[in-house]
Amino acid sequence: MHAVVWSNNCLTLLNQTLLPAKVEYIDCYDWQRAAEAIKRLEVRGAPAIGAAAAFALVLGARAIAGLTMPEFRQKLADTAEALQQTRPTAVNLFWAINRMMAVLQKLPEQADTLAAIAALEQQALAIAQEDKAVNEKMAVHGAKLFTSPVSVLTHCNAGALATVAIGTALGVIHEAWSQGNITRVFADETRPLLQGARLTAWELMQAGIPVTLITDNMAGWVMKNNMVQAVIVGADRIALNGDVANKIGTYSVAVLAKEHGIPFYVAAPTSTFDFTIHSGADIPIEERCATEVTSFGGNCVAPQGVEVFNPAFDVTPHPLVTAIITEFGILRAPYNQAISQLSKQCE
Amino acid sequence: MHAVVWSNNCLTLLNQTLLPAKVEYIDCYDWQRAAEAIKRLEVRGAPAIGAAAAFALVLGARAIAGLTMPEFRQKLADTAEALQQTRPTAVNLFWAINRMMAVLQKLPEQADTLAAIAALEQQALAIAQEDKAVNEKMAVHGAKLFTSPVSVLTHCNAGALATVAIGTALGVIHEAWSQGNITRVFADETRPLLQGARLTAWELMQAGIPVTLITDNMAGWVMKNNMVQAVIVGADRIALNGDVANKIGTYSVAVLAKEHGIPFYVAAPTSTFDFTIHSGADIPIEERCATEVTSFGGNCVAPQGVEVFNPAFDVTPHPLVTAIITEFGILRAPYNQAISQLSKQCE
Repeated sequence: MHAVVWSNNCLTLLNQTLLPAKVEYIDCYDWQRAAEAIKRLEVRGAPAIGAAAAFALVLGARAIAGLTMPEFRQKLADTAEALQQTRPTAVNLFWAINRMMAVLQKLPEQADTLAAIAALEQQALAIAQEDKAVNEKMAVHGAKLFTSPVSVLTHCNAGALATVAIGTALGVIHEAWSQGNITRVFADETRPLLQGARLTAWELMQAGIPVTLITDNMAGWVMKNNMVQAVIVGADRIALNGDVANKIGTYSVAVLAKEHGIPFYVAAPTSTFDFTIHSGADIPIEERCATEVTSFGGNCVAPQGVEVFNPAFDVTPHPLVTAIITEFGILRAPYNQAISQLSKQCE
Repeated sequence: MHAVVWSNNCLTLLNQTLLPAKVEYIDCYDWQRAAEAIKRLEVRGAPAIGAAAAFALVLGARAIAGLTMPEFRQKLADTAEALQQTRPTAVNLFWAINRMMAVLQKLPEQADTLAAIAALEQQALAIAQEDKAVNEKMAVHGAKLFTSPVSVLTHCNAGALATVAIGTALGVIHEAWSQGNITRVFADETRPLLQGARLTAWELMQAGIPVTLITDNMAGWVMKNNMVQAVIVGADRIALNGDVANKIGTYSVAVLAKEHGIPFYVAAPTSTFDFTIHSGADIPIEERCATEVTSFGGNCVAPQGVEVFNPAFDVTPHPLVTAIITEFGILRAPYNQAISQLSKQCE
């Protein structure tokens, strides 16, 4: 079961809004449908969004194969722009689109649109392929943080469904579990859209990893009762100073982890780092519609017309982050130094 | 709209599991239906549970009016025992039942069952009536904590629906709002049963008090962004040392308040204090069924068969509690001293 599949010029996305009740796929034959899927969270998770956007650009390019090269470049830049508008917080979206558009710059002067499309497809496949390798490296590095059997808590979904491969945080969990050093996962349900209940619990059960589902407001009590000994989450964007944007509620979990002396780990590929911003204050936080909060699984649960605040993400300040697991190894404070070194490795 | 009404030997309860979608009342003509209502949370909130249990005992007594006095006493003790089994955490339940059973001890020797029933009814009415007066006193004392306009955060429902009158925490909010010192309330939705979304938001909107609904995991981010300047909640049981049992999630909110230097206030009548226990470690925490977490309103949102942890309450240690608002005034640390003094006032 894969979140993002490219085959025969069709981008197939597992519709994550219907899981676990229904396993249904969306076949995207044009970039507009793919953009819709990103907006609606039918595909979600920072790395998966990046890969989906890359393939969406290939679909966009194929639709304008008949244009002249200058027209093609202009039109594809418009498509890239539209794709960038779908979700503002996860930086992998911008990272993937930038990588794709850079392909156009490197084309030989005589290249036609068909050559461009072939190069774009190759780049999108490389992004997806790299995500797989990167996930595996993160899992190996991250598992080293677990040297004796513990239970961990995770928030939202940073698993196979959030990526092209085995996941970021869940990839690490899977590896440490197979080594006998993670024995149970407490999964925050992660309101409003319940990615923890619907996706993380489901993925872990499928993998045979013991999982206990809790509501978000139980995390503190679970820690207080020493039921978990570490927290591990994914990320949507990481600033140069180590501030981490991730699903709303992550910040609260990080504060609770600090209060209980529990390490708080973030697993994120370098594509999640934004080397252009100095702190989390520069990360735009997406606000989503009120109905996500006023309803639960399609059921309205709040008085009509109630005011709602619905930020989709929050920023965890770097002093709360014990370590960041990347494909190049484990980063620790001072993060400014570690992350600027990482940026050089990526050049 | 009242949560608990006694009229013509019928206990009428507002069915809080259906709010705000449906306003429906349950007429209890026997104590068994009232006990069911407490178990199912059709009536909830520590003071309201206490009053409902008192009236349930009157119903129980009326059903056995034909017995001899010794049989009557024995049978009513069994009913009291059964009512005590309905919910383990809120101490008001035990407090009200004890007050009711003490009535039987004080009856003149020649009293018959009809006299006993009359005395029990009078005591139940007194419990309900006192709750009203106590709520009003708490509101006046609590409002003094707010001397300039602020926004506050509350968790679960400690309003009119949780009591016989205007509420504990919401009573204070109402009073401070009418004085211009509370300008907005952020209401945690309070999973799993969403008392915040369904009841608190609804009560506040009906009162015309500006309210913003958030999911529980947004509380930390709301504090981080300085959107609230105080927290105020109710309580289900308070130990001699000031440890506070309240709806699950309260502990997390208290830790977050501490992290942000925000005062954390608890509003509770003396009936919520358990003068027999020294700390929160002695408070039994009710665990409820998994389906509360895996579904809402009949909608399943988690994989079938997933393991769940579902504590209905947690305990906030007294060092996190800035002050406790009672009908006798504001208690502050050291709580051992303040609460033992309070216990003397109640004798």
